[in-house]
Amino acid sequence: MEKIQKLIMLMTKKNIDYCLISDPKAISYFIGTSFSPGERFLCLKVRNDGELVLYLNILFPYDETIRTHWYSDTDNPIVNLVKDLRGTVAIDKNLAAHFLIELFDLSKDVHFINGTVIDEVKAIKDHDERKKMIKASMVNDEVMKEVAKLIEVGKSEEKLAEEIMQAFNRIGSEGESFPPIVAYQDHAADPHGMPGNRTLKEGEAVVVDMGCVIDGYCSDMTRTFFVGYNSEKEIYDLVLKANLAAEAMIKPGVRFKDIDKAARQVIEEAGYGQYFIHRLGHGIGMEVHEPFDVSATNDMIVEEGMCFSIEPGIYIKDRIGIRIEDLVLVTSDGVEVLNKYPKDQEVLIK
Amino acid sequence: MEKIQKLIMLMTKKNIDYCLISDPKAISYFIGTSFSPGERFLCLKVRNDGELVLYLNILFPYDETIRTHWYSDTDNPIVNLVKDLRGTVAIDKNLAAHFLIELFDLSKDVHFINGTVIDEVKAIKDHDERKKMIKASMVNDEVMKEVAKLIEVGKSEEKLAEEIMQAFNRIGSEGESFPPIVAYQDHAADPHGMPGNRTLKEGEAVVVDMGCVIDGYCSDMTRTFFVGYNSEKEIYDLVLKANLAAEAMIKPGVRFKDIDKAARQVIEEAGYGQYFIHRLGHGIGMEVHEPFDVSATNDMIVEEGMCFSIEPGIYIKDRIGIRIEDLVLVTSDGVEVLNKYPKDQEVLIK
Repeated sequence: MEKIQKLIMLMTKKNIDYCLISDPKAISYFIGTSFSPGERFLCLKVRNDGELVLYLNILFPYDETIRTHWYSDTDNPIVNLVKDLRGTVAIDKNLAAHFLIELFDLSKDVHFINGTVIDEVKAIKDHDERKKMIKASMVNDEVMKEVAKLIEVGKSEEKLAEEIMQAFNRIGSEGESFPPIVAYQDHAADPHGMPGNRTLKEGEAVVVDMGCVIDGYCSDMTRTFFVGYNSEKEIYDLVLKANLAAEAMIKPGVRFKDIDKAARQVIEEAGYGQYFIHRLGHGIGMEVHEPFDVSATNDMIVEEGMCFSIEPGIYIKDRIGIRIEDLVLVTSDGVEVLNKYPKDQEVLIK
Repeated sequence: MEKIQKLIMLMTKKNIDYCLISDPKAISYFIGTSFSPGERFLCLKVRNDGELVLYLNILFPYDETIRTHWYSDTDNPIVNLVKDLRGTVAIDKNLAAHFLIELFDLSKDVHFINGTVIDEVKAIKDHDERKKMIKASMVNDEVMKEVAKLIEVGKSEEKLAEEIMQAFNRIGSEGESFPPIVAYQDHAADPHGMPGNRTLKEGEAVVVDMGCVIDGYCSDMTRTFFVGYNSEKEIYDLVLKANLAAEAMIKPGVRFKDIDKAARQVIEEAGYGQYFIHRLGHGIGMEVHEPFDVSATNDMIVEEGMCFSIEPGIYIKDRIGIRIEDLVLVTSDGVEVLNKYPKDQEVLIK
């Protein structure tokens, strides 16, 4: 219950009376038990004196390690839940709106706030989690080696994406952390473009953004390759320079917004600022996208044990998209870049 | 825009000023465009005079068929969204809590209610949707025929579940509507038990709960088989009787709660009431579980075009679980049971 203790300390510090944790992965993180409740209400109520109550439908077997309020399909568990609610109540970020509206309607004198506090605990990976994050990225690096061999002129994006999923399956991962993005040249100008039937031509860019799940933790990396020659060397070098500039400055105490700025400045100074259209990165762990963003609006300070992505990109409509992404782990005095797959060998000679 | 017109008529009838639709599948249902925004804010704002505004991150390409408010990773789209919000605002049921809390904090004189109205429109399938629902269940029936042949003594639940997924793949579906449940005998006493390495013995029950997606619409059916002989004939017949009793009474104008009661009464009168531990059924369409429940607490009236499941079950710990589930479509004067796979041939002779 070390993680619950950390949460309670943070709740006390921030004058939060209750936390309502509803995300099954967050519940698994805090109490070690996994539930798949579908649309049914699931909630771990944490009071700042350490009292815990789990709200669970009778359909889901559980040994009651945590005190459990069981309800059936014809009960409304929220009626019971609100009985002792008071003061400031932090709500898990993804609780479904209809439950929250019911909470609002049934509560009196309660101040609901966003449960950022839950994400603050989860953002700092402990020793065991760090090992899992490192391993997941190591496996991702291994598969990227295979991908470099699989890229060939005439192959469709769809086909390559399918081969990536097969490789993740073969290597024994628990699956992809998201459906792999494979996008060629101008198609890569859409940062989330899904693989289609477009086939690869000599000299074109190949953006591969992929990740897998190992022991419940996610990896996520992007590399951009060219076949035969790099037709957009200036842009590639710029994105790489931005990636390296950001990674070089990461250490405890630095602000997220300043890391974003380091990368963005490189791209802006070269005149491509308008083409870098997204945040620099995102947190990662049991979910592939977790708080907190590496973005110009995030004032938070980076701490030891945080894991996030650094993924500058340049996207020019009808011409090209290039992105280079690593995961990083903040250490006591700097940073470990978890992806070791090279970034400076983008030209594949076939 | 016929679907949006239906929504606006219902909003007017219920004195709702705005609807905020956030679920990507609901947005696709209403405007025909699919987005995959991940954790980023996506919302279709519908005003009851017909004005529509789509809130979309600049990362996602869109042709602006609907007027679009574009925002970037460093903007807060909700600041703009709340500007003209007033009166009663219906919120899509699964909007993430952190967005709703932001909406609350930034709005003045607004009354937020649960967006049931969105689900009321979606619950009535139009002609085209009915055809898709029928087709998805027809394919599910076909695969159940294969499953009956695949069941054999000594095979593990996991293995059979894997074969079901392969069959859905082979037959050209877009995948499963949920991971298939395969549970033997006492393991089936957990209604959501996931397939494990338990192997099948002669005379045991095999619960198979499965569905696939065809043209974006879901199927969902459960059959319980026995190998060689039915070791729990009394219970099987009871569940079947409950299933048939409920299906026989469905027609426009009947209340959901009364359908639930028809099935429950059969089981209660035989003394097994305590073992039927869940609602009788759930709505279904683009999502495998949609509003509205067939349950003792649902006073709503059944209407032509609604699709839902009828799935009574009996679950006795350490002994047996039996469930028989069909999808039904309400017609102008009765009901069409979409699953034609037989329910009275539960004994497989191998």
